[in-house]
Amino acid sequence: MTHPRSEDPADTPWRRRLHTIVFEADTPAGRAFDMALLALIVLSLLVVSLETIPSLSEPTRLWLRVLEWVLTVIFTAEYVLRLMVVRRALVYAGSFYGVVDLLAILPTWVSLVFPGAQALLAIRVLRLLRIFRVFKLARYLSEARLIGDALRASSRKIAVFMFTVSTIVVVVGALMYLIEGPSNGFTSIPVSMYWAVVTLTTVGYGDISPKTGLGQAVASLVMILGYGIIAVPTGIVTAEFANAGRKLEDHHINTQVCAHCGADDHRSDSHFCRHCGTALH
Amino acid sequence: MTHPRSEDPADTPWRRRLHTIVFEADTPAGRAFDMALLALIVLSLLVVSLETIPSLSEPTRLWLRVLEWVLTVIFTAEYVLRLMVVRRALVYAGSFYGVVDLLAILPTWVSLVFPGAQALLAIRVLRLLRIFRVFKLARYLSEARLIGDALRASSRKIAVFMFTVSTIVVVVGALMYLIEGPSNGFTSIPVSMYWAVVTLTTVGYGDISPKTGLGQAVASLVMILGYGIIAVPTGIVTAEFANAGRKLEDHHINTQVCAHCGADDHRSDSHFCRHCGTALH
Amino acid sequence: MTHPRSEDPADTPWRRRLHTIVFEADTPAGRAFDMALLALIVLSLLVVSLETIPSLSEPTRLWLRVLEWVLTVIFTAEYVLRLMVVRRALVYAGSFYGVVDLLAILPTWVSLVFPGAQALLAIRVLRLLRIFRVFKLARYLSEARLIGDALRASSRKIAVFMFTVSTIVVVVGALMYLIEGPSNGFTSIPVSMYWAVVTLTTVGYGDISPKTGLGQAVASLVMILGYGIIAVPTGIVTAEFANAGRKLEDHHINTQVCAHCGADDHRSDSHFCRHCGTALH
Amino acid sequence: MTHPRSEDPADTPWRRRLHTIVFEADTPAGRAFDMALLALIVLSLLVVSLETIPSLSEPTRLWLRVLEWVLTVIFTAEYVLRLMVVRRALVYAGSFYGVVDLLAILPTWVSLVFPGAQALLAIRVLRLLRIFRVFKLARYLSEARLIGDALRASSRKIAVFMFTVSTIVVVVGALMYLIEGPSNGFTSIPVSMYWAVVTLTTVGYGDISPKTGLGQAVASLVMILGYGIIAVPTGIVTAEFANAGRKLEDHHINTQVCAHCGADDHRSDSHFCRHCGTALH
Repeated sequence: MTHPRSEDPADTPWRRRLHTIVFEADTPAGRAFDMALLALIVLSLLVVSLETIPSLSEPTRLWLRVLEWVLTVIFTAEYVLRLMVVRRALVYAGSFYGVVDLLAILPTWVSLVFPGAQALLAIRVLRLLRIFRVFKLARYLSEARLIGDALRASSRKIAVFMFTVSTIVVVVGALMYLIEGPSNGFTSIPVSMYWAVVTLTTVGYGDISPKTGLGQAVASLVMILGYGIIAVPTGIVTAEFANAGRKLEDHHINTQVCAHCGADDHRSDSHFCRHCGTALH
Repeated sequence: MTHPRSEDPADTPWRRRLHTIVFEADTPAGRAFDMALLALIVLSLLVVSLETIPSLSEPTRLWLRVLEWVLTVIFTAEYVLRLMVVRRALVYAGSFYGVVDLLAILPTWVSLVFPGAQALLAIRVLRLLRIFRVFKLARYLSEARLIGDALRASSRKIAVFMFTVSTIVVVVGALMYLIEGPSNGFTSIPVSMYWAVVTLTTVGYGDISPKTGLGQAVASLVMILGYGIIAVPTGIVTAEFANAGRKLEDHHINTQVCAHCGADDHRSDSHFCRHCGTALH
Repeated sequence: MTHPRSEDPADTPWRRRLHTIVFEADTPAGRAFDMALLALIVLSLLVVSLETIPSLSEPTRLWLRVLEWVLTVIFTAEYVLRLMVVRRALVYAGSFYGVVDLLAILPTWVSLVFPGAQALLAIRVLRLLRIFRVFKLARYLSEARLIGDALRASSRKIAVFMFTVSTIVVVVGALMYLIEGPSNGFTSIPVSMYWAVVTLTTVGYGDISPKTGLGQAVASLVMILGYGIIAVPTGIVTAEFANAGRKLEDHHINTQVCAHCGADDHRSDSHFCRHCGTALH
Repeated sequence: MTHPRSEDPADTPWRRRLHTIVFEADTPAGRAFDMALLALIVLSLLVVSLETIPSLSEPTRLWLRVLEWVLTVIFTAEYVLRLMVVRRALVYAGSFYGVVDLLAILPTWVSLVFPGAQALLAIRVLRLLRIFRVFKLARYLSEARLIGDALRASSRKIAVFMFTVSTIVVVVGALMYLIEGPSNGFTSIPVSMYWAVVTLTTVGYGDISPKTGLGQAVASLVMILGYGIIAVPTGIVTAEFANAGRKLEDHHINTQVCAHCGADDHRSDSHFCRHCGTALH
């Protein structure tokens, strides 16, 4: 059995070794790399969030800014390393993790030009998805897949349900605008529809609330309606879960990433990449 | 096999052709007609909602008003066309879509006399139900039917539940009126019942909230009760869904509409209207 | 076949006839009597609620007061009639409907001495339970029984759940009192526990809300906890419903009431009272 | 059959008798002891909570303080008694009930040094768990175990769900901070994340709410999302309950506690401690 692609001349030993460390978590070195990376990601999230607190002292703020730049430089170096190590750089750059890795460093660089862009750094949280790979939480991934399957199977029912809810929101919004009017906080139909969503979902901020007797009566009906229809998506998803639970076969997935195309989620008994056919070690 | 009704002398070729374009979405022309119509409906909904925003500049407002009249004239022309094309105009006028089509244009005309009537234009959203026909989303309709069936099957249980909730609302409303009194915002028993609904459904605006110790204790019990009984409708509907899911046969429905009586939801293997027996093409 | 009890000397024909009219709804006269009674009950509920609205004009208020007294006199007459017509007055007086009928008239009479007692008239709503008898909604009663059975079967699980929730409320209440303190609205542990209930049940009035960073962090955890445990009672009741639904035998119950002891809910195929053995007509 | 451990020289008759009274509830004396203890625990909880109400008169406050110290001395005596009576004091001290018993008395003693510590007395509520032993509510314990099993079985799915919710909270928090900004109450990303939790869980205090049109639109989407994902944990737990309900074997558990190691939850047909092998009476 020959695996022509692994004979690629660019596939030098040090590159394969770096690939194992940077992209996988099955070796001690690879795991240490990913653990350090995760710690830095959590640290960077903390820095980004804390930086927005207005009551910070000026020195604290400076320290946080310095930390953020240090972390961004590290993440940029890591991104460049990944591009160099993987055999098909463009495939990685276009993959989910590749895009996330780029988005995680872009805002700080952009903030040199547009100051507000830093808040977007919160998307770094998506990088935490790597945690699943590190802790070999492959089982969790199959659970996530189970939830996803259940939601997908009931997506058509949910679409019909969402359409019904949207219709109720528009009709109730227009009705309450007529009943309460701008003087009671229902300043326009869009605002009135926002109130309808706040009420139907039982969030109930109270920033806008009916003042007239008729408005309160209609609002009561809307609330009871909302209370009743909360049962519908629950019923749909529960029935689907009961089905999915029966069908689930325990997928055994490991943390290897193909050195050729960057595909992951390989089953433990796979010998070749399920995507491009390259041999897995 | 003879289909006497399709020999109707009024059933001229151009009328049949117009019927196919206006009422159905199985031909390219019919689909184009419906897509354009849908775009206009969405546009009109946007116009109606935006018009109520108070901070609009006078020129913007004028533009929106003009747009609304243009759209209303188009929808009126479409309604008249439908009445002429269908063989039994009265059956169409009395059908669900017929009533909706009329209600969608009426408010603008009425607003010439009563200015406030425009807000009712929001019922135009119901016209969006045509979207199901256009995208051949016949499957979605059978999902809607499944949800409807589950709700209908559990309607008696839901009625008993609603009656129980109503009783709790009246009793708690009267009780809190006695405990808190008008000085704490519970100005009358109807207002107190409105508070009870807001609390039981876990909406909780906070426009009225108990101030006395006893009132807060009773409110806590009501909340826990509301928290508990939210489980009842969910349980009812879920059990029904699990049943309905098992019974569901996949209905195959197409987008044809009977040229004689306007009935739709025909199964793909139907050759005659399930309502009046006219042959379908 | 002899029915010794129906030979009771006090069981004169006019009394039996009145019993059929007053207590049952199977004859035209009995149904007319109950329909009129229901209309009066709904009217009296409306009167009692409207009377508490502060913005009423003095003449309206007087009219409502007069109406209330007229209705109370009618209900009192009806109560006395029932006591005379039924063979065992004390058994009726002690039954559920007997107690409700008495409670429905007592507050107005008591209000001659204590003015505030009128608000208690709202318990008249319980009299509406007669509606089930009038409309022969015997099926609904078996649905109510199904819901009751499901709740009873899961009562032990619900008790454990309630105990857990109470413990969380006390612990979180004490904790937030320590964190936020009286200056942020958490004036005492009982008030803090009230806040915990408002938060855990996702009602969220907003009359008390955490102001400090630590308080908001703890509150966030409590909310997510509350969001998670809302699933527990739902799961319990749903599982029970699924079971109960399978077991349900369709009970066929009619609206007769025993002339001897006042027991109701007789099955259609019963010839004797299930409680005292008196023959049913 | 010999039980060497019960020949322990330290196991004198009075000690065995005291053990039966203090630790078990199967004899009249043991039950009386536990009932008195429970009454004192409830009393102490009431005292601790009431003490924090600011509007108390000085004499009432003094009375409550005295009562608290009396109760603490009693509970301390009880704790020492338990330590002396049980054969392995350290095993008891390290067990769940042992730790709770200690935590219940510690805060009052600590409050001699740090005044605020008293509020922690609310953890005395955990001592109420003894109620299950007293009322022989062994069945309830098996129900609690059922709920626990169902939650444990779905813990991986719940972890994935929680991770998804956390990600949404961070992303939405950062987004709303950018849209609304500090001038509309979204003073920092952590505060914005607190708002996201309040909204996603449908609590909705209203202390922070979107003011701009774009903010209200995004908030509406978040609410509908929250409304939808409330279905997921419910579905997970319900499906698990349906499974667990089928598997449940009715455990028959009595209230004996091992005199040697303090283990409880022994099945009725056990003759030896399931933990250390000591014979049970």
